[in-house]
Amino acid sequence: MSKQAFQDSYPAEFSHCYGCGHDNPHGLQLKSYWLDEEDRTHTVAHFTPKPYHTGGVPDKAYGGLIASLLDCHGTASAAAAAYFKEGRKMGTAPILRFVTASLSIDFLRPTPIKEELTLYGEITQLEGRKATVALSLSANGEPCATATMIAVALKPE
Amino acid sequence: MSKQAFQDSYPAEFSHCYGCGHDNPHGLQLKSYWLDEEDRTHTVAHFTPKPYHTGGVPDKAYGGLIASLLDCHGTASAAAAAYFKEGRKMGTAPILRFVTASLSIDFLRPTPIKEELTLYGEITQLEGRKATVALSLSANGEPCATATMIAVALKPE
Repeated sequence: MSKQAFQDSYPAEFSHCYGCGHDNPHGLQLKSYWLDEEDRTHTVAHFTPKPYHTGGVPDKAYGGLIASLLDCHGTASAAAAAYFKEGRKMGTAPILRFVTASLSIDFLRPTPIKEELTLYGEITQLEGRKATVALSLSANGEPCATATMIAVALKPE
Repeated sequence: MSKQAFQDSYPAEFSHCYGCGHDNPHGLQLKSYWLDEEDRTHTVAHFTPKPYHTGGVPDKAYGGLIASLLDCHGTASAAAAAYFKEGRKMGTAPILRFVTASLSIDFLRPTPIKEELTLYGEITQLEGRKATVALSLSANGEPCATATMIAVALKPE
């Protein structure tokens, strides 16, 4: 079964994000999906750091990468949930695009740089233009960071 | 007057951070300083995004870049303050190196990508191995994001 990533539905003007835009060749190109297509409450993404994504501690991923991945996965999850709530396919007009109002991250343990990282998201609240997203980043099944995001939908042009 | 950046005092094993390590050619190479060498309470750093650091909104910097800059400026500020409190020159042994325990960011307005960004830091608490740092990122004199970091010093090897 082929699945389209949330970010691949973004229209051209929103496809240049360094963290997740498919039109940014320099960027991380994170891809987010529903964890279970039948139960659209949780989201998932995978990312394997590059060797140069080192952090303040040798052989660990840098905090900014972790924040970047959480940020992009969170806003993508919010958009997916908002489209689903409206019963619309992602990417259809009017465009629903979320930006981060706040992101609060707890770093639980050093994040290994040589492992595939898994990001999880759960929309805990979605009212009007505001979404609250619970996020985590794990390696080898153990959470390395958790976060809470408040994301806000851009007003339609 | 020549000034040494906080990050330039890091020993080799801590100089590869993507955000601020001088030995990471792929990285952002952020440089942090005291705002006033005579009054060592506030810190500053400057950074001009690259064109590919675009975010979810066209012509604005991406949230992960903002988080990365805040993160590196915060841990560098914490280390500088801890050395100063001990009356030691940065980089002298035993090494004081801080990692982020938590980072909570409020995004106040879109951050322009074509302007030089200014980061400010203030150590609001420093007790034992724990530092609390108030951070902000501004463009054209206007704050675009504020943050609070809790950073913890690594235990000496």
